Amino acid sequence: AGTTLAAPAIAQEMPSINWRMASSFPTSLDTIYGGGPELAKRLEEATDGKFKIQVFAAGELVPGLDAINATTDGTVECAHSVGYYNWGKDPAFACGADLPFTFSGRAKAAYNYHGGGLEKYNQFLEQYDLISFPGGNTGTQMGGWYRKEINTLADLQGLKMRIAGLAGRVVSKLGVVPQQIAGGDIYASLEKGTIDATEWVGPYDDSKLGFQKVAPYYYYPGFWEGGPTVSFFFNKAQWDQLPDNYKSLVRSCAQATDQNMLAKYDSKNPAALKELVASGAKLRPFSEEILTAAFEAANEVYAELSAENEWFKTQYEAMLQFRDDWYLYAQTSEYTFDTFMMIQQRNGKLAP
Amino acid sequence: AGTTLAAPAIAQEMPSINWRMASSFPTSLDTIYGGGPELAKRLEEATDGKFKIQVFAAGELVPGLDAINATTDGTVECAHSVGYYNWGKDPAFACGADLPFTFSGRAKAAYNYHGGGLEKYNQFLEQYDLISFPGGNTGTQMGGWYRKEINTLADLQGLKMRIAGLAGRVVSKLGVVPQQIAGGDIYASLEKGTIDATEWVGPYDDSKLGFQKVAPYYYYPGFWEGGPTVSFFFNKAQWDQLPDNYKSLVRSCAQATDQNMLAKYDSKNPAALKELVASGAKLRPFSEEILTAAFEAANEVYAELSAENEWFKTQYEAMLQFRDDWYLYAQTSEYTFDTFMMIQQRNGKLAP
Repeated sequence: AGTTLAAPAIAQEMPSINWRMASSFPTSLDTIYGGGPELAKRLEEATDGKFKIQVFAAGELVPGLDAINATTDGTVECAHSVGYYNWGKDPAFACGADLPFTFSGRAKAAYNYHGGGLEKYNQFLEQYDLISFPGGNTGTQMGGWYRKEINTLADLQGLKMRIAGLAGRVVSKLGVVPQQIAGGDIYASLEKGTIDATEWVGPYDDSKLGFQKVAPYYYYPGFWEGGPTVSFFFNKAQWDQLPDNYKSLVRSCAQATDQNMLAKYDSKNPAALKELVASGAKLRPFSEEILTAAFEAANEVYAELSAENEWFKTQYEAMLQFRDDWYLYAQTSEYTFDTFMMIQQRNGKLAP
Repeated sequence: AGTTLAAPAIAQEMPSINWRMASSFPTSLDTIYGGGPELAKRLEEATDGKFKIQVFAAGELVPGLDAINATTDGTVECAHSVGYYNWGKDPAFACGADLPFTFSGRAKAAYNYHGGGLEKYNQFLEQYDLISFPGGNTGTQMGGWYRKEINTLADLQGLKMRIAGLAGRVVSKLGVVPQQIAGGDIYASLEKGTIDATEWVGPYDDSKLGFQKVAPYYYYPGFWEGGPTVSFFFNKAQWDQLPDNYKSLVRSCAQATDQNMLAKYDSKNPAALKELVASGAKLRPFSEEILTAAFEAANEVYAELSAENEWFKTQYEAMLQFRDDWYLYAQTSEYTFDTFMMIQQRNGKLAP
């Protein structure tokens, strides 16, 4: 000690990095998939090409649903995914993505960055050799496409619906029979009547698949995804080797990408929704009966999971006070302003 | 040509930059002021100290309301401010900040980054040798503090209110008499009755000033600031000299800071609102009569300004279709999800 020289400063500060990222998304979902290339572009530009990440769409290197696991085992250095895809491995993975009836995208950002959400999620992820940062949000998703109207709980009995993971477990308590079907097969399954309903994302992504032609009832809200966080996951050992300037840069660029994905969806969804309705989609809100029963079913699932899984319990319980405070506060200025503006919209006062 | 060497790559890629930023905010408004130091910290970290910005609070170098002008004239390289502070110089400055009855913070981000808002604002700013990027948002502000209840338009007649700029021009059409009073003098003015009301920001910032003790009626929403964009302004000549990697880095770090300020406010405002109510604030929504009249007054002001100022007209009209589409779309999933969650909040179902 004392006689060794530190490595030359330039080499330390700006090493050349070439990483691979496994995305859970196909390129056809251009907005959610686009978060991966967007992070890569921001990093490459800011470092004059020294920090490069090559992004692989779902299935190119590993199946989309394996992107997080491929990061844990070091097949790739990083992933762009949604934590709940790993919920079968450990339900606590879902807590960093979305739990039914928790937060809107706006509230989720506050919880992630300043409500302790991200820290708690990263404490959980350590056992999987991962560290994550938010990298996108879709906003509240739609409640999916249905061949028939769904007015009461009786209408849900035996309903075969393409819906996965934790959301599937919640709605199965209401009599829905969850189905696992790959994205490309959903349209044909609805057309043939093999399934009665499907959830997908929101108007912009849904509009590419033409569901309105075979299952025209388009329900809202997607109560199982009020504000799903899409995340960047990094292999922890690889992350730890980055110099501090690169770590800071990744965090800044990830947060910019996080906001930007939601802003993109918010700019695209309105026009897409109008087009869907013009081409036959019939918009329907879920009834209060269904929403209330689903909320109670979600709470039952949370009690079951909390009894079995300490990491789930810790994260879920941390959300509760934050959620209560947010939805109290939001009733004042935000909600009243939005409500007034929506009334003007209905009265035709907002457009030229 | 052809015989000169380009400058050495290292020097070009990572030059040492030392800039000064004039903030329009006092350090006591820690969250909105904090956006300046946050951008500086992100840049300094990502460049290992090569890109430094020293931030000066309002009044340290130039008065807070002169921060943008000091950037135009080159006194400083950049500013952290809100465009509407310059509205007296040119009303079109307000368009990149907020106009009454336009957008929530969520919609504003979509409009800024993907609805053409930022491009249009920067086209306008060129004549002032400026380029700007969003650098924060407060969310929908509160409607201010009032010594007496304000139920009808009659209650606004002759009301002396501390409210500035474009908002002041709108409410003056309703009979309010706008007053200009420095932040530090508001409390005493309300206590003595020199003024009847004041607007400030939202619960977190308002709670530091104790207005509930002298003007307890706390109205919402602050319809003149549905989602005000706080911006970083750069002197265009200085900006143009930055290498491309620094330009990209600034944009990424500014956008991260933009989201982060709103997330900070959203995490702090809920608890602050509860404390304000516990210490005497009486929450009141503005009546529909007042909101509707204010909306019509705002539209009159927009017609007047559009007739006088082409830059205002161009930017304002670009907002209209975007606003209409957003407030149609938002009525589906986002609003219905939030409404359901607020009902559960009122029923005591969200907290442990």
